[in-house]
Amino acid sequence: MTKPHNSHTQEAFMARAIELSLDNVRSGRGGPFGCVIVKDGEIVASGVNRVTATNDPTAHAEVVAIREACQKLRCFDLTGCDVYTSCEPCPMCLGAIYWARIGKIYFGNVAADAAKIGFDDSAIYAEITMPHAQREIPMIQMMREDALAAFKEWEKNPGKILY
Amino acid sequence: MTKPHNSHTQEAFMARAIELSLDNVRSGRGGPFGCVIVKDGEIVASGVNRVTATNDPTAHAEVVAIREACQKLRCFDLTGCDVYTSCEPCPMCLGAIYWARIGKIYFGNVAADAAKIGFDDSAIYAEITMPHAQREIPMIQMMREDALAAFKEWEKNPGKILY
Repeated sequence: MTKPHNSHTQEAFMARAIELSLDNVRSGRGGPFGCVIVKDGEIVASGVNRVTATNDPTAHAEVVAIREACQKLRCFDLTGCDVYTSCEPCPMCLGAIYWARIGKIYFGNVAADAAKIGFDDSAIYAEITMPHAQREIPMIQMMREDALAAFKEWEKNPGKILY
Repeated sequence: MTKPHNSHTQEAFMARAIELSLDNVRSGRGGPFGCVIVKDGEIVASGVNRVTATNDPTAHAEVVAIREACQKLRCFDLTGCDVYTSCEPCPMCLGAIYWARIGKIYFGNVAADAAKIGFDDSAIYAEITMPHAQREIPMIQMMREDALAAFKEWEKNPGKILY
């Protein structure tokens, strides 16, 4: 696939994310998802879905790209970076994008498109908004007083690295 | 810390998750979060927060433990496993737990406890439930027709591994 766009435009970055998603299906390595992370007008990292290839259910394209960008830039904060992903991020990836402090999210396919081919992120979105008691996966709270001990130690630790 | 419980009870699994969270703060390696994954009454994997230690904003305790469990069990599906985590999972981790097909979530600290010491998962929970246009991180949809090409190839690919 030849690049149909100037290589430093939003369209070119998205075209690359889409190209990665197509390559991933054609190679048989994983799901139809690709992603690039852009800083200062350049692609600094990319990712494709590697869930089945690497036995890692967290290896969605966005998570893979965020991990790679952080390794390359040697930081855990991608402030100043944007993400171009071939599909609207699932809740896991959206959470990862927030924690990484990414600036903007450009996406191609919408969540409903993913649902149509069997990736039902919308079920997870629905679950997250429900009260604990109504969720599909039971959530059981226990031993809060014991668990708070670590939070208290964190608060009083002068050497902690905030993130 | 001696284990205060029989080693195969829910309390013992949670005590181990909490012990890991305390160790992580005391060692200076990361945030006050620990997690174990249990299958058939045994701990099969554990994780602590390694965001700053490994420059990986996705390395929350639950994600680390899920990855380890999948590597050990050589699968991308943790059906039959439960998670014991020292704190209520953030949206990223909750998404990872859903994708991993984990059965039950036991948690110690609640999200409000995490917010009090500066980990404001609740802001991410709020963002996820908002319409795109109202979110803090702009979400820009583009090139959907091009992006759909990979989904069409996925659908017609007879050799795909579903996940």
